[in-house]
This record gives sequence, C-alpha cells and structure tokens, in this order.
Amino acid sequence: MAERAALEELVKLQGERVRGLKQQKASSELIEEEVGKLLKLKAQLGPDESKQKFVLKTPKGTRDYSPRQMAVREKVFDVIIRCFKRHGAEVIDTPVFELKETLTGKYGEDSKLIYDLKDQGGELLSLRYDLTVPFARYLAMNKLTNIKRYHIAKDFDIAGNFDPMIPDAECLKIMCEILSSLQIGDFLVKVNDRRILDGMFAICGVSDSKFRTICSSVDKLDKVSWEEVKNEMVGEKGLAPEVADRIGDYVQQHGGVSLVEQLLQDPKLSQNKQALEGLGDLKLLFEYLTLFGIDDKISFDLSLARGLDYYTGVIYEAVLLQTPAQAGEEPLGVGSVAAGGRYDGLVGMFDPKGRKVPCVGLSIGVERIFSIVEQRLEALEEKVRTTETQVLVASAQKKLLEERLKLVSELWDAGIKAELLYKKNPKLLNQLQYCEEAGIPLVAIIGEQELKDGVIKLRSVTSREEVNVRREDLVEEIKRRTGQPLCIC
Amino acid sequence: MAERAALEELVKLQGERVRGLKQQKASSELIEEEVGKLLKLKAQLGPDESKQKFVLKTPKGTRDYSPRQMAVREKVFDVIIRCFKRHGAEVIDTPVFELKETLTGKYGEDSKLIYDLKDQGGELLSLRYDLTVPFARYLAMNKLTNIKRYHIAKDFDIAGNFDPMIPDAECLKIMCEILSSLQIGDFLVKVNDRRILDGMFAICGVSDSKFRTICSSVDKLDKVSWEEVKNEMVGEKGLAPEVADRIGDYVQQHGGVSLVEQLLQDPKLSQNKQALEGLGDLKLLFEYLTLFGIDDKISFDLSLARGLDYYTGVIYEAVLLQTPAQAGEEPLGVGSVAAGGRYDGLVGMFDPKGRKVPCVGLSIGVERIFSIVEQRLEALEEKVRTTETQVLVASAQKKLLEERLKLVSELWDAGIKAELLYKKNPKLLNQLQYCEEAGIPLVAIIGEQELKDGVIKLRSVTSREEVNVRREDLVEEIKRRTGQPLCIC
Repeated sequence: MAERAALEELVKLQGERVRGLKQQKASSELIEEEVGKLLKLKAQLGPDESKQKFVLKTPKGTRDYSPRQMAVREKVFDVIIRCFKRHGAEVIDTPVFELKETLTGKYGEDSKLIYDLKDQGGELLSLRYDLTVPFARYLAMNKLTNIKRYHIAKDFDIAGNFDPMIPDAECLKIMCEILSSLQIGDFLVKVNDRRILDGMFAICGVSDSKFRTICSSVDKLDKVSWEEVKNEMVGEKGLAPEVADRIGDYVQQHGGVSLVEQLLQDPKLSQNKQALEGLGDLKLLFEYLTLFGIDDKISFDLSLARGLDYYTGVIYEAVLLQTPAQAGEEPLGVGSVAAGGRYDGLVGMFDPKGRKVPCVGLSIGVERIFSIVEQRLEALEEKVRTTETQVLVASAQKKLLEERLKLVSELWDAGIKAELLYKKNPKLLNQLQYCEEAGIPLVAIIGEQELKDGVIKLRSVTSREEVNVRREDLVEEIKRRTGQPLCIC
Repeated sequence: MAERAALEELVKLQGERVRGLKQQKASSELIEEEVGKLLKLKAQLGPDESKQKFVLKTPKGTRDYSPRQMAVREKVFDVIIRCFKRHGAEVIDTPVFELKETLTGKYGEDSKLIYDLKDQGGELLSLRYDLTVPFARYLAMNKLTNIKRYHIAKDFDIAGNFDPMIPDAECLKIMCEILSSLQIGDFLVKVNDRRILDGMFAICGVSDSKFRTICSSVDKLDKVSWEEVKNEMVGEKGLAPEVADRIGDYVQQHGGVSLVEQLLQDPKLSQNKQALEGLGDLKLLFEYLTLFGIDDKISFDLSLARGLDYYTGVIYEAVLLQTPAQAGEEPLGVGSVAAGGRYDGLVGMFDPKGRKVPCVGLSIGVERIFSIVEQRLEALEEKVRTTETQVLVASAQKKLLEERLKLVSELWDAGIKAELLYKKNPKLLNQLQYCEEAGIPLVAIIGEQELKDGVIKLRSVTSREEVNVRREDLVEEIKRRTGQPLCIC
C-alpha cells in the first residue's frame, strides 16, 4: 500500500508540472506534433510486429504473486498482524523511497544494496532498504519519544525510555508467538549483544577499526567452519593468528543462561565494561524470557553478529531447524526467518539536537516464510481456495439473464458473496462445473417454474441435494449454510 | 552543548596548528602526530555535527501515515476488499517496478509522468504508473485468458471473452457499492465510450492525428467552461472554429438512457460505425444497470474522455457531489474518486502472437478517499482508537513486575490483546491514565492479597467498577466484556 501512496502522490505532482508546461503554447504544439508522429508510426507498423520486441518478464529479483500465492500471503500476514495487535501495537506507514541522505551511513557494508532513483527534479531519492531507518526518521521528524508500532505486517518496534530488557523480552516473545502460530516447524532464536561482541574483540586484541569487518567474518559461522572463518580473518583481513584463536575460543560457544553466568566469571571478559553491561542485561533478559515461557527457544550464541551498523545492544535472529516434514522436500537450507535488536543511537542521528530515543524491534522474514508455507502446502497437496464466493446464481433454462442479474444483485446488496457466469445463456452443466473448480459450495438455480412459485432451487455442490427456498428466506439460508469461509489451512 | 562548542573550538585550533606546522615544513612525523590529534578530536566531536546537515523530510509529494491516518486507511481498505470479495475476485500482486519497455506506449501523454530508476545492472526499470498495464503484462506472461482479480485493494478487473456489457455492468455496480458503503457523500458516475468519442470527432471533421489531443481538451470540460476549451482547441491545437463548434454541440450534452436513444437517431452520428457500436452497447449497459438498481447514479456524459491510450470501449468516472456535510469545510473541489473502462487491446500488445484478451476494470482513488474520510472524522471530532488492546495488566503495589509479566504472557497465549507498562514499579495512577489515553476498556490489577486469594481485580476504566475474578476465569470474563473491538466509525 505504501508503494502506491507514494507513487500516486509523486505522479500527481509531476502531472501538475506537465499540465503547467502544456499551458505554454510552444510545448503544447510540440506535444501535438509528437502525438501525431507516434500515431503515424503506430499506423505504419502492424500491431503484432511491435509486440515481438517485448521481453515478457518482471525485473530481476522481483516476482508476481498468483492468486494462490496471495492466499498464502494473506494467511501469513493475518497471523503476524493479529500478534502485533495482541501486543497493543499501532500501525504507521512511510513512503517506499526516502531522501538518499536519510539512508546513507546506516547500513555499513549493506549500503551497496540500496536502489537509487533517477533525479526527478532536485531530490536524490533511494528505495527504502528496511523499515527501521524510515521509522527512526519518522520518530525524529515528529519528535516522538514513545511509541509501539508495526509497519506493513513485517516490522515491530518499541521506542521509549523504559526499564531494562522488558521491551526487549516482549520482542522475543512476539517472534516466538508468530513463528509458533505459523506452524513452519521447529525454530531457535539466537541471542547475543553488540556490547559483548565489541568487548570480546577488544580483550582479544582486535583494533577498533577492524571491529565491523571481523564482525562480518564471525557472522558467517552459521554457514562455514571456524577454520574458513579464521582463514578469512588472518588471510584477508590481516588479523594475527593468535588473536583469531582467542576469538575462536569465544565465538564457538553457545548455550543458555548458564553460559551467561559462566562468562560473567570469565577473568578477562568480566574486566571489560561493555561486555559486563551486555552480560548483565542478558542475565536479566533470560529471567523475563523464563516468565514468558520461551527460554527453551532461546540460545545465547556468541557467533551471532548482525551486520547492520545501527545495533547498539541485544541482537537476535530466529532460524528454522530442519524438521522431518521438510526433510523429504527440496532443502530450504538453514537461514533467518526473523531478526532484530536494540538500536539506541539511530533516532539521535536524525535529531538536529542529537536527542536519543532508545528503540528495540524485530523484523519478520515474510518473503522467506511465504515460500516455506507454499512449499508445505504443495507437499501436502492442499487445495487452496482463492475466492470466498458462497453461491453461484445459475439458471436451468435460456432467456433468464435478467432474472439472474436481479437475484445476484439482491444477494450482493444483502452482503452475500455471489457470482454469475457472464453469458446470456450458459449451460447448467458449465455453471455446475464452474462451482466445482472454484470450490463454490452452493448454487442458486432459477427456473421458469421456480419464478412462478416464488422460490429458488438451492443446490449443495458437494452433496448435490436440492431444496426449494422461498425467495425472501434465501439470504438467511445461504448465511446459515456457509458462514464466513476460512482463508486457507 | 557547551562541551561540544569547546570541542569544536579545539578542532579549529588544532587545525590551525597543523596548517602552521605544514608551512614551517616541520618534520613529517610531527605533522603526522598533530594530524592524529586532530582526527582524535574530530572523532570525539562525534557524528552529531554531520547530522545538522540532514534535512528531516520525506521526498517531495510523499507522506508518512500516522497511526490515526492508518486506522482510517485500514477502514477504507476493509470496505473495498470486502466488496471485491463479495464479487468473487481473486487477488494478485506485481512488483512496484517494471521493465521500462513494459510501460512504454501505453499511456499516451501521461507517459511523461513515469519515473525511471537508475540502471542497476543491465535492466532499464520504471516505477509502475498504474496497476492495469502490469496486470495486462501478467495475463500475457501467464497466458491467462480468464480471470477476475483485484490488486492491492484498489483495482478490480474482469478479463475474458464474455457476452457484451455484463462484466462492464458489474464494474459499475462495484463502484457504486463501494462509494455508498464508504459514506463519503453523494456521487455520480459519468459514463461514455471511446468509440462514441472517436466517431463524434470523425463526423465533426477532426483529423485522426488530432483525436487524442482534442480528447484531452474535451476532458477539461468538468473544470473549465466550454469557451476556454474551445479556445484551447482552436488557439493552441489549430482546430477550425466550426469544427470546434460541432464538437461543442455534442460534448455539452449529458443525461440518461434517453440521451442514448436520441443520439441513436442522430442523422450524422448514427452513420458512423464506431459511434453506433458504442451507443448500442451503452443502451444494453443501461438495461443491466437498471436491473442492478443503480441507473439513477449513472450519467451518460459526452464530455468524459479518459486520457489513457489503452481504453477501447466504455469508460467511466465517479465524482463526488458537494454535500452539506462537506460544504462547511475546506472545499475538496470536484474530482474523480473512482474510474475505469474497457481495454480490449492491451494484453494483445504483450502477447508475442498478439492474442487479444478483452478486459474491463475499475480503480478506486484511495488516496483521495483517505483524505475525505480523515476530514470528515476531524469535522465530527470523532475519537479514533489506534490500538485494539482489551486489557492493561497493572499492579497496585511495588515488586510485582514478575507477576505482571506472568499474567500478561498468560493472556497473550490465550489470544487476549493485552499490554503492560515497561516499568519495574509503575504508579497505579499512571497505569490508569494510560488506559484513559489509549482507550483501553479494562485493567487487570494484581495485588499481594489478590495473589494470596488466587484472584485478579478486574476494573472497568469507564465505570471504575472493580470486581475480583478467579484467575482461571479471567480470560473468559475479558472476552465476555470486550469481544472483537471495531476498527473505527
């Protein structure tokens, strides 16, 4: 929706500019001339020829969504939004692009992935890369210090000065609620803290300037072996082997609150102020997670190092565990289906006075989840209804189009989901077949005799039973028999 | 800030020292050293300085949506989607940008309004300008000849070979249903046909090459007088005055089916094959609109000439009529809130073999409708809830954070929309005030005594009544007292 809003507004503006131009005589002659030429050219080459040149595809990295895929999407979004609302979130939206400078210097190495628009008149614009930076820009712009919001069924954030780790714990609770209700299999949420990472690098002897790049090496540990990561650190990034080994001793550890306790006793790490803060907060976090009944889903993992520059505290990432259900199918590979963390400095980067607004949030990997759910449904060969139509208005004989139009209109006005075939005289068989294919449960059949008797023949597509219903009772009977159809699953 | 000013001063001084040293050709390592100091100072000065340069704004012509505005949007989209589903539509989605060539040559003069992206690697991309051309591209790409779909709660289209005017009539019915249920005031749907326009221009003596540009002049008749339109045609677009006058005699007429009948008798117009087809279809259309009970909302208006090149048959546009409710407020101006028409050639332009798929559709002007509904709500000073929270979990005494976390978690797991304040020991008063502000109807209050007795004190925020509820009955009681909260209105 946000895309449309932004695009339409822009198009409107640009339209005014062009209309302005048109008022000038010169340009309007020019336009007329061009249009004339265009029409001539069109006349010259036959319509088909010009078609051949078209490449029928969507842009690289984009896709269409078929009705079946949209039904899946609708179901996933429904689960996510219901959870966000259950946790009292408001919803905001921001434009699909931002001033380029708004996005600059927030994403670290990912900055390369940002799409720029052609200059359209004075402003350098880029397509938004995530929803977090636009959210921070929104808070600073509106001088908000306090909000709990979600953003297009994907991102949830809590902004404000609160007692430590309570909002952070709720974000993890939300992640677990959503991933559980989506029933996409077992999952684990890895948790770490940017301050623990930085403290660890410091005591291992990594120079400040190398923190981020070493971070991104460590982050690969979920995909490649420690040996490969070490080679990258030493070979490519010029780290001393003994430094790398010290790092290795830490980042290969993961566990529960007991690991937090153990590291709090670690002679070197506990001497580092940052690390100590991070570990203290994690200890508190685990207490709250236990009260939320999700501590068994959480793993403190020292190798988790989210790439984005703006994180300042706790970070987390949910990964799916291979389940028997999936084992048979084409492997999905492990990978993050949700992630987030604390970013206390980002809003301050936008505020003219640098006022800070502490934030913590999460983002659901909806695209990835869509394909997982799709794959699951295909594996189960589940039939997905792509419409919610309750009844088809049909006729047994010819010359009854007017009556069908009148009845279907009555049903629409009464709030019934109804269709008819767009033919003057469709065969009854075709009308019944249409119901079978579309999964429409009921057929309201009009016939000469029924019209005389003031009744409609209501047929159940599955049982094929037919009963005459008085026209004035039809709406109630259809409601009684169907009720709100479910989305899918 | 004082500290900051001092730092800035230091940076300046240090900078001068460095420049001074350089002039003295001092030893390079001395300069190095001093430069090092300068950089350290700059680092201390921190990123804030650069922030001053940020312009805190959204791109030209775009806007953010606040929670209140989103609540309005949600309500509008809900009305629209319910209607689309009532008419048995599936839903699809397509990317926000398309290959540039996909959009080229479909919009006539509007083509200038299309936004191009910077080349990101081989492909020339443009932001989509409407949803109709992407839909046609989608049909051709997937070789679909038959679909009824909607597209992000805005566009509804029926594609397929059907008997004349039945789908067209349904599109107009849908427009009327949506505009009525939105309760944004009285409206009128202007209807015309591209073939009638073209036929009329032909018999009036307009050269083919001028059809489109004259079309766009005629289209202005809803905003400016006929004299001004005539001046544009004659003065700017070089039309002979007598030709313009002939056009004027037609385009200033509007009415119901009777006007269709009358023009069917028009000696000149009835001789033009195209015009005759168009008029015949309009006559049939009006029959169906009468059966749908919306003929009183429809006006055959010969001045309606939608600009887009792809329309081939019936075209329509819904306009709001100034209502007393709005009269007081800042005038919205007349303008289209929904529009559409028949485009039988567009899909063929994408099909390699030029196979045609007849289509008819409509588009709802959601942005415009949002602002109208917003304005209406402000006028009525209606309070809009931006969350759906049913209950706040509160505590009367200190040291009950753990108990609050446990209870709120229980409620979330039971599907209750619940919140708590993110403070270790919030004052009861603050917790009650929060409910007042957020419109939360219930408060579940935990106290030492209640914990002993195994009950929760449930308080109604409006009546201030409090009753003790057994903890195991709490969920049911909250459900009973609240139920699903409504969106707005």
